Amino acid sequence: MNLELIAKNAKEASYKLASLSEEIKNKALQEVSKNIEKNKSLILEANKKDLEKARQMVEKKEITKAAYNRLKLDEEKINTIIQGFKDIEKLEDPVNKKLWAMEIDEGLELYKVSCPIGVIGVIFEARPDVVPQIASLAIKSANAVILKGGKEAEYSNEIFCKVISEALDKVKEFPKNSINLIKTREEVKQMLDLDEYIDLIIPRGGNSLVKYIKSNTRIPVLGHADGICHIYIDESADKQKAIDICVDAKIQYPSACNAVETILINEKCFDNILKPLVDELEKNEVKIKADEKIRYLIPSLEPATEEDWSTEYGEKTVSIKTVQNIEEAINHINKYGSGHTDCIITEDDKNSDLFMNLVDSAGVYKNASTRFADGFRYGLGAEVGISTNKTHARGPVGLEGLVIYKYKLYGNGQFVGQYSGKAAKKFKHKRLI
Amino acid sequence: MNLELIAKNAKEASYKLASLSEEIKNKALQEVSKNIEKNKSLILEANKKDLEKARQMVEKKEITKAAYNRLKLDEEKINTIIQGFKDIEKLEDPVNKKLWAMEIDEGLELYKVSCPIGVIGVIFEARPDVVPQIASLAIKSANAVILKGGKEAEYSNEIFCKVISEALDKVKEFPKNSINLIKTREEVKQMLDLDEYIDLIIPRGGNSLVKYIKSNTRIPVLGHADGICHIYIDESADKQKAIDICVDAKIQYPSACNAVETILINEKCFDNILKPLVDELEKNEVKIKADEKIRYLIPSLEPATEEDWSTEYGEKTVSIKTVQNIEEAINHINKYGSGHTDCIITEDDKNSDLFMNLVDSAGVYKNASTRFADGFRYGLGAEVGISTNKTHARGPVGLEGLVIYKYKLYGNGQFVGQYSGKAAKKFKHKRLI
Repeated sequence: MNLELIAKNAKEASYKLASLSEEIKNKALQEVSKNIEKNKSLILEANKKDLEKARQMVEKKEITKAAYNRLKLDEEKINTIIQGFKDIEKLEDPVNKKLWAMEIDEGLELYKVSCPIGVIGVIFEARPDVVPQIASLAIKSANAVILKGGKEAEYSNEIFCKVISEALDKVKEFPKNSINLIKTREEVKQMLDLDEYIDLIIPRGGNSLVKYIKSNTRIPVLGHADGICHIYIDESADKQKAIDICVDAKIQYPSACNAVETILINEKCFDNILKPLVDELEKNEVKIKADEKIRYLIPSLEPATEEDWSTEYGEKTVSIKTVQNIEEAINHINKYGSGHTDCIITEDDKNSDLFMNLVDSAGVYKNASTRFADGFRYGLGAEVGISTNKTHARGPVGLEGLVIYKYKLYGNGQFVGQYSGKAAKKFKHKRLI
Repeated sequence: MNLELIAKNAKEASYKLASLSEEIKNKALQEVSKNIEKNKSLILEANKKDLEKARQMVEKKEITKAAYNRLKLDEEKINTIIQGFKDIEKLEDPVNKKLWAMEIDEGLELYKVSCPIGVIGVIFEARPDVVPQIASLAIKSANAVILKGGKEAEYSNEIFCKVISEALDKVKEFPKNSINLIKTREEVKQMLDLDEYIDLIIPRGGNSLVKYIKSNTRIPVLGHADGICHIYIDESADKQKAIDICVDAKIQYPSACNAVETILINEKCFDNILKPLVDELEKNEVKIKADEKIRYLIPSLEPATEEDWSTEYGEKTVSIKTVQNIEEAINHINKYGSGHTDCIITEDDKNSDLFMNLVDSAGVYKNASTRFADGFRYGLGAEVGISTNKTHARGPVGLEGLVIYKYKLYGNGQFVGQYSGKAAKKFKHKRLI
């Protein structure tokens, strides 16, 4: 089937999805988790085919061992996936919530009601657990989706889509063509032109993918290109907090987008914090690039260049830069950061307020690791991705980011002419919700 | 000053704007309205220059008489503008609202707090009252703006920007470069590339302008290209409501985007409603294009073609099409509509629910004129435009559409490593708000 037809069918499905009750959506989630349970061995078999191909790619150094590991499914991971569906089932239905209401006049009531976005295109990395994760969010939020996964997870993605579709077919109210899988890069290109049918694109992937997509479509794009996160160690910082948080933010998962890339240290902390921080980072095999002031004190460190301030290392490397005061730190972050997540280590409430108000990022933290930037840790229940957009949804995006609203106006024959001219009726404008 | 520098300065201003208190913003609004009051005669003089140029254009038929009238300011209109600032002052501050909060763990609290978007580019039609209107919304929502108005209002726009900037300069906390005016189309083109500095573009204007902008920028765009609104007259419709609403929706302001373009009539209403509706429309000088079934009954009507279903007439012309049932009406609207505002005339609650759930538009109405789709009528206090987007903001966009949120996380040294592995601490995830 060609992509335009897939998208058209998905759009038609999306209209019907919008009116499904919470009960039906939860029933669909149950059927899917049952069917995944039932087809465990088929899923693992398909995954084995991906792994066999990937093993050869590791040997040829086409992909890393870490990428191979991310590809791997086992019984336990499938159980986690099944649990995921059960967790999503328990979350509050994001659709059909009355967000606001106004009595415009007697018998003329306006309701702002949440509703699904429509058709969402999701482009993601080679991880077989993403298909069920996105599917569960799509079902609960009543959006149709068009999925394109990394080709290394080809067989796993295909079997998951099959098992999910099969289960949805059992729920007769659930519209066909709600969950769709596409396979080629060519189709991704085509997708970008289908703004008639696709309402939102969520690219999960590297900087170049996100930038390419943003530059080549009229469809709104939700995501983040970079994850250049900072920790600023303020004059009044507590030494142990600074060290714990910096080390965690760098080494707990160095390739994550919420890992720290640049530590800004107030020069008044040189005596107390700099040396033990560097020691602890080095003990954890972190490579440090530092500016001249720091290297004057610790000459063994590698020099940092201007380029380092805009580099997402994605590995156990961190840059450290001296700042004279909090203003310099804030300006540096707003200039070089990616608006993802930035942290201040301080015992001074005035400084943390200043930092958190003036740093223009999705997450602004006081005395906590940037690694907390994640939908599950935030308690959103699930995450479709992290956004550095300044519109629609920002930060970790859960179910709420997958809905929009419509205005429903209930009248009994009112027309605007009654409210204009000499004998104009007056609007009542009384908030109901 | 070149545009890139203007945008860069606006971005810097936006960081400071984000931390202004409600008090300062209201003071700024007061200063501006005082200064407009004080400079009334200067403003009227500048407007006269625009009018003189426009008068010649009307003579050469380069612009319509209606466009000329929209351009015209007088004492009364300026008073309305001043009142606008006072009204905005009274509205609730959209910034710094705690929207949601979660206790992630003891001493680790997450707050989702509303904040301004940043820098917004607004491109608008030749109406001199738009500059003060957008400026008032920008001040209250703490966004920096770059404005480009229709060149016919050149002098009026310039004087308004000058008077506004002068007033803002008196409020020392208010950052410079918050309100900016650009003048050439060339600069609009440049603006589209400045995604580093500009966070949102709001084009108010015709279909081709909006489409051009959406196709040529990575910056999110908020607006609507078309306004193809429908009224569906259901089987159970009340005759008088149908006639009143259809006539109002067409003639009250035919060039508005929320005017009706196509009336869908259930064929079971032919006997009762069709003829009196046509009579009443014709009495109001509306030209009617109809399908063959209707023309069989009223042969004097002009035939409608496939093209009519996607046409925004923008004048006293309407198309009427027969549908056999509500499903056909819904499908027609979802296929040909622009997702702006669509109405059902019915006395059947089940049918209105069906219509309002399945029609995928920003506004879905029961027994009320589509002309109600407007920020003032909705009671939003003001309107920056109407959006048919499926993300961020939909329908008439007031102050709330000019803000986003950031996540503020307050900890006392927590790091993610504590919550993983064998001795992992558990998250508390207790909703605070």
